Amino acid sequence: MVECSVWRGVIEVESRSQYDIIDVTGMVEGAVASSGVKRGLVNVYVPHTTAGVIVNEAEPGLLEDILEMLRSLTRPGHEWRHNRVDNNAHAHLGQVLTGPAKTIPVEDGKLLLGTWQRILLVEMDGPRTRRIIVTVSGLA
Amino acid sequence: MVECSVWRGVIEVESRSQYDIIDVTGMVEGAVASSGVKRGLVNVYVPHTTAGVIVNEAEPGLLEDILEMLRSLTRPGHEWRHNRVDNNAHAHLGQVLTGPAKTIPVEDGKLLLGTWQRILLVEMDGPRTRRIIVTVSGLA
Amino acid sequence: MVECSVWRGVIEVESRSQYDIIDVTGMVEGAVASSGVKRGLVNVYVPHTTAGVIVNEAEPGLLEDILEMLRSLTRPGHEWRHNRVDNNAHAHLGQVLTGPAKTIPVEDGKLLLGTWQRILLVEMDGPRTRRIIVTVSGLA
Repeated sequence: MVECSVWRGVIEVESRSQYDIIDVTGMVEGAVASSGVKRGLVNVYVPHTTAGVIVNEAEPGLLEDILEMLRSLTRPGHEWRHNRVDNNAHAHLGQVLTGPAKTIPVEDGKLLLGTWQRILLVEMDGPRTRRIIVTVSGLA
Repeated sequence: MVECSVWRGVIEVESRSQYDIIDVTGMVEGAVASSGVKRGLVNVYVPHTTAGVIVNEAEPGLLEDILEMLRSLTRPGHEWRHNRVDNNAHAHLGQVLTGPAKTIPVEDGKLLLGTWQRILLVEMDGPRTRRIIVTVSGLA
Repeated sequence: MVECSVWRGVIEVESRSQYDIIDVTGMVEGAVASSGVKRGLVNVYVPHTTAGVIVNEAEPGLLEDILEMLRSLTRPGHEWRHNRVDNNAHAHLGQVLTGPAKTIPVEDGKLLLGTWQRILLVEMDGPRTRRIIVTVSGLA
């Protein structure tokens, strides 16, 4: 009999610099395999306000382009009000644009990522330890 | 025996000006508690095209910075084509950037928000009454 | 007895030009009706890195405004590093801003979209065939 299941795991990663992008696809694939869920969805969530999650291609030049675009839209040198409290307004603003999470379909126990899609943690206020909460829900 | 559950609720809030950010975390926490779901996800969705939902820090200066950034990216003074129909293209464009919803993990009947994370409704065409559809799904 | 269900379908659409927006609401509504799910959520996901999914109004002038904004934020004429590999960095960057998916509530077997909300595929590197993975989960 098919049963409904919700599996939960937490992954930790270390970012290496103020701005960094870390490919976490392999870790999320491992979590999905561990979950026993065959058909459903995986939610990849960072409980942070200065790092986000995107799904895109991991070509090295593009990863630099993504960070350049985020900097151009969030202007680290601008006199943001939040910088009177903590000098990282640009990183909060970048998380508003990328979002804290992505939800990806799972079929036959595997992620339905497109050919070029990778799950990427976008660090904008590193280096730091970052947590990723992985929730796999669906039919086991 | 553990059972699969989907709980649905609707919250209404009043925005106070054209641009406004409203912290709805407490209301979503109440909905999650009411749902009886112990492990799962909560989807916080606004059925609107000129208001969005983000998850970030509720520091007052930062909230103004977020609105300033959204204005700078969506240019309320620009001659957008939609303004011939309704003078709020900037608000639609801001919703495209923030998105209408966020999905957040739930464990032990509580939101797994990070230390600084708050659930924020972003009003860009107020003041208005806004609806928030809350869906809590998972294991009861 | 109420049962938990996860339904999966794939839709294909053809974009007509480099930048294009396609209203896929009707197709998603059909998928939700087919699924038999009465209360739950539908995840609309594109397995692509140069097209995204948004939920907004389908007024023709606004659709052009959305594409104009995305072009202004992602600058197709800029010398992005990724353009040495493939001349479409702007499209990848636009997908980072729109996201590959949206999740929408379902009640009584119908989408809980707001009055003006439509589900829109945003093409930024067409014309092409694009796939949309639809996952409907909840109580049947």
